[in-house]
Amino acid sequence: MGYEYDEAIAVSPAGPGEYAADLQAGWVVGGGVNGGYVLSVIGNAIKAQLDGHPDPYTISGYYLSATTPGPATIRIEELRRGRGTSTVRATLGQVVDGEHVDRVSVLATYGDLTRVGGDIRTTATPPELPPVEECVLTSTAPPDVKAFVPMLDRFAMHLDPACAGTFVGGAPSGRAMIQGWFELADHRPIDPIALVTAVDLLPPVTFELGMPGWAPTLELTVHIRATPAPGLLRLRHESRNFAGGFFEEDCEVWDSAGRLVAQSRQLALAPRPLG
Amino acid sequence: MGYEYDEAIAVSPAGPGEYAADLQAGWVVGGGVNGGYVLSVIGNAIKAQLDGHPDPYTISGYYLSATTPGPATIRIEELRRGRGTSTVRATLGQVVDGEHVDRVSVLATYGDLTRVGGDIRTTATPPELPPVEECVLTSTAPPDVKAFVPMLDRFAMHLDPACAGTFVGGAPSGRAMIQGWFELADHRPIDPIALVTAVDLLPPVTFELGMPGWAPTLELTVHIRATPAPGLLRLRHESRNFAGGFFEEDCEVWDSAGRLVAQSRQLALAPRPLG
Repeated sequence: MGYEYDEAIAVSPAGPGEYAADLQAGWVVGGGVNGGYVLSVIGNAIKAQLDGHPDPYTISGYYLSATTPGPATIRIEELRRGRGTSTVRATLGQVVDGEHVDRVSVLATYGDLTRVGGDIRTTATPPELPPVEECVLTSTAPPDVKAFVPMLDRFAMHLDPACAGTFVGGAPSGRAMIQGWFELADHRPIDPIALVTAVDLLPPVTFELGMPGWAPTLELTVHIRATPAPGLLRLRHESRNFAGGFFEEDCEVWDSAGRLVAQSRQLALAPRPLG
Repeated sequence: MGYEYDEAIAVSPAGPGEYAADLQAGWVVGGGVNGGYVLSVIGNAIKAQLDGHPDPYTISGYYLSATTPGPATIRIEELRRGRGTSTVRATLGQVVDGEHVDRVSVLATYGDLTRVGGDIRTTATPPELPPVEECVLTSTAPPDVKAFVPMLDRFAMHLDPACAGTFVGGAPSGRAMIQGWFELADHRPIDPIALVTAVDLLPPVTFELGMPGWAPTLELTVHIRATPAPGLLRLRHESRNFAGGFFEEDCEVWDSAGRLVAQSRQLALAPRPLG
């Protein structure tokens, strides 16, 4: 039997450089389908397109309009095919009232992570997290929250209670940082494509600034630096510059072997109220 | 009399959504024209295209091949025109032996920075720098370095001596951080378009890891958060994950009023030897 996540990101060829996908209602958050998940669907189509370069080294999504559950088409244009890397642009669109609407525009450079060198000089340090059993599992959120964020059932996210104040109905920490342990609901191993989803799954850091709600992403860029070792991942979201109605949100993903496997940054709009 | 920088980034209309530019030999670094400067030229064309949305909120460049000094063409395709923001994709190309070659592919979302709100809750802190007169001016580099990096004459970059070891022929600090004071050579005020250049002008942080040389950029994303106040800017480059032949390089730009005006991140390849 296959994994739920593989069905959710599945693409099928629909013409030269074209792929069809079916965006899952289970990945809805607030007013649309989760931006990281949609970027993984596009990333999966690019992977299908590029023989020999299966892994996103860097992928950038610019969000044009809110994606809805249901059929979508991905068109891919190869910009450069090199020995070590390939660069493409891609667009995910949907049909609304008989008319095609672009949802997300993407640039990405792919390669083969099994071929990168082993010289690792990471100075960043992994998040210090309490044991999983002392954390707050987001899928235990109250029904009114889950009605708005059905994607909480797609994964096990165990939040560090020190920065999960707002999420459990308590006081926000006042610091724009949220961190926790992560795996997909059915333990599906996290590969480079799934990492692109993982970086966008923690609650917006603005929760901990006392501004709960959905924060629409303008742009999300993800660097995948290694294929994670098996086991739970550690995720940390942080922002240092909430200003002018925008904030940047950086995510780091660490694997069970202590390797920094992904780094992302997004520019998001200040949150809109829930519900 | 006009500023040198304005001539360097000038674009002229060359058809619907098309602009012509002349990339300056004075902005060469190592094997190509500086990536931040090229991104500003593209950014300037996008600014010309988008009435009412003059400022890049976020701009991403994917580098396809090394740009050379001389004529270039920018093609712009509008993806979304909204009330507050517009999103485009753009490509800069050059003619090589009679054939068009794509150099840089871009996605960008523009708006009007004079219209963003004044709610500023920045928790990042500006670089602590010694006074300008105690810093190392990069334009005083030896002739063999400047022959390889002629762009050093385009600006005044005053490096913090604590992290300028390799640059002055001393020992590297061992920490992937370089910072300094910055202005353009002829004191041309730094606007949002020029900020896109500024984030790519410090020496690669790998200098301070004992790996001098030019570090080719795969991808550079810049968030412009405010128009700088007049005066010298403070710049800081930092990397936390040198691994597998790649490193991320984050730049922050602070203005004289203490505001974090730009944040960028690039994914770069480990340096190639100078010369």
